[in-house]
Amino acid sequence: MTAIRYELIKTDKQTGARLGIVHTPHGSFETPTFMPVGTQATVKTMAPEDLKVMEAGIILSNTYHLWLRPGHEIIREAGGLHKFMNWDRAILTDSGGFQVFSLSEFRQIEEEGVHFRNHLNGDKLFLSPEKAIEVQNALGSDIMMSFDECPAYPATYDYMKASVERTSRWAERGLKAHARPQDQGLFGIVQGGEFEDLRKMSAQDLVSLDFPGYSIGGLSVGEPKDVMNRVIEFTTPHLPANKPRYLMGVGSPDSLIDGAIRGIDMFDCVLPTRIARNGTLMTSQGRLVVKGAKYERDFGPIDPKCDCYTCKNYSRAYVRHLIRTEETFGLRLTTYHNLYFLMNLMKQVRQAIREDRLLDFKHEFFEEYGYNKPNAKNF
Amino acid sequence: MTAIRYELIKTDKQTGARLGIVHTPHGSFETPTFMPVGTQATVKTMAPEDLKVMEAGIILSNTYHLWLRPGHEIIREAGGLHKFMNWDRAILTDSGGFQVFSLSEFRQIEEEGVHFRNHLNGDKLFLSPEKAIEVQNALGSDIMMSFDECPAYPATYDYMKASVERTSRWAERGLKAHARPQDQGLFGIVQGGEFEDLRKMSAQDLVSLDFPGYSIGGLSVGEPKDVMNRVIEFTTPHLPANKPRYLMGVGSPDSLIDGAIRGIDMFDCVLPTRIARNGTLMTSQGRLVVKGAKYERDFGPIDPKCDCYTCKNYSRAYVRHLIRTEETFGLRLTTYHNLYFLMNLMKQVRQAIREDRLLDFKHEFFEEYGYNKPNAKNF
Ligand SMILES: [Zn+2]
Ligand SMILES: [Zn+2]
Repeated sequence: MTAIRYELIKTDKQTGARLGIVHTPHGSFETPTFMPVGTQATVKTMAPEDLKVMEAGIILSNTYHLWLRPGHEIIREAGGLHKFMNWDRAILTDSGGFQVFSLSEFRQIEEEGVHFRNHLNGDKLFLSPEKAIEVQNALGSDIMMSFDECPAYPATYDYMKASVERTSRWAERGLKAHARPQDQGLFGIVQGGEFEDLRKMSAQDLVSLDFPGYSIGGLSVGEPKDVMNRVIEFTTPHLPANKPRYLMGVGSPDSLIDGAIRGIDMFDCVLPTRIARNGTLMTSQGRLVVKGAKYERDFGPIDPKCDCYTCKNYSRAYVRHLIRTEETFGLRLTTYHNLYFLMNLMKQVRQAIREDRLLDFKHEFFEEYGYNKPNAKNF
Repeated sequence: MTAIRYELIKTDKQTGARLGIVHTPHGSFETPTFMPVGTQATVKTMAPEDLKVMEAGIILSNTYHLWLRPGHEIIREAGGLHKFMNWDRAILTDSGGFQVFSLSEFRQIEEEGVHFRNHLNGDKLFLSPEKAIEVQNALGSDIMMSFDECPAYPATYDYMKASVERTSRWAERGLKAHARPQDQGLFGIVQGGEFEDLRKMSAQDLVSLDFPGYSIGGLSVGEPKDVMNRVIEFTTPHLPANKPRYLMGVGSPDSLIDGAIRGIDMFDCVLPTRIARNGTLMTSQGRLVVKGAKYERDFGPIDPKCDCYTCKNYSRAYVRHLIRTEETFGLRLTTYHNLYFLMNLMKQVRQAIREDRLLDFKHEFFEEYGYNKPNAKNF
């Protein structure tokens, strides 16, 4: 019995998008879903109860950050990450790889692993496939990630090929090091940049190792949107239908819909929480920058079509005031709305799949959000 | 009919402390009570619902800050401060006087009012008794404060005498300018520093104007604790028993108990929220600085005797981690606990008055908190 099980409910007749359920040791959640990011064992400004109100069934946390602070041994002693942060639903942890490659200026990749510097104090550190698994075993997340390299975009074919091959070897080493397969499911991460044959090779390598789920990494790193969509299109056919598929680091409303249409089940991104802290909001009518002077005397809600806590109780004028005066309650209100907006968007996507009308839903949503306008602004 | 009415329930046989109820247009609250401070139309990191769980019946907000941002006219247009910030219980606003004297380096006091500079951008501003009332009438707070001067400690007798006389004239002007006496109760502020005859003169001047309540200002500004207690002792006898008494800017646990013993009904202070943001907590066993290394693997609650949201759900190790990583959820947890601790302390004080044992309660509390130790640390 594996810790993670995917149940396919149905596919959308218009697009082939999948409606499913992922079963974990900490409960089940419907897919496609968006996972709020709790980098340092907290989804910034949110209490676990807030996330439950918006029906989050799974959140993400970052192995690299928790390894450094407070340290995975402390979280193990606390009884695991769920208990430490008071979250009894599912948790997914990344491998630490992304931070190693994005936060450290110095890094040296070897077959054994990666030498790099702690972004906080400059200390030398070493992360290997085995270490990434050891840390995640201590955290006790329901879904773990294999240690992978995420090359910068664009990378040459030759570099990408060598990297993909190493990432497959690392995935196999991680699988062997995994000490708690009954409690935690380890996903393999498909890499390969924009190269169709490398994505195929990566997917086939990993599928041969029989992971309980597969991630698609190395996207949303600066490539054009149509490139991302094409990569998903030629990657998912190589992934088994009875396992969940997780598109890493993607969270703009259009990409969530486009990803679901292409067979993705799980998404995560810091976008909704990060832009919220700058006072930028996602609404049914598009992007809203609440700091703007035009909202000074606007006593209506952030999004008239939203029934979240923020929109039911507070005005644009009040939220603007809080953001301008740097009050943390303002960040809480904007974060709450943005997360709620995406959770609600995914609920609508699931309903559209149920009704075989996801393409119609996409057109309606894009039209109202403003994506069809020339030079439409994303985030 | 006045907007604010005080109902005396009973006095404690051991100390003379008062158990009472203050009735306002936005509900009633029992006294003695502590009022959380919401400087900029938000109690930092708290939602209104959080404050209701801890049974706050009244909060304080700052006229000066709201006058500057977002501006009192905007709050008037929003339907008043209650509606703007989504708080339907009582609100008390200060007069702006304290900020004029504490935040501005440049100031010039005239009979008409005070010239000073905006602490945000240096613009010249002018605040008068009439303007302070106009702003508070726009805010619509249940309890308003007269515009007063709060001289720095220590001040000479002659300076203090002239200041007290002017503050009384300003109080009378404010009373005349008050446009909404049916909706909002205006308090006079007793000044006079540590001088008994000046405190008496100030109290008698104000009482002759028949305010619905009286504040004691100019304390907790650097004077020794026994001086503060003595000033309260010789001031309250000059205040009428049928009106509430508010001791401004006092919020350490010992001072709350000592103030109640001397007949004070209402307190406010930024102390619990300010120290919380630095990770300092009030507990039944005294001060706890949760950043300390000794809490790194302490998986017990902040205060084992506390049943607040923070203490029921999170460990010292987790709160320490959040504070060290500058996560705002940590500030929310520490703020919540400190406010809950003081609200709960005042509830215990009221129960002790009910049972005629406030002096006994004080001795028990001081002993456990550590106030009786030599060189006991306060905040
Ligand atoms: Zn909303
Ligand atoms: Zn507590």
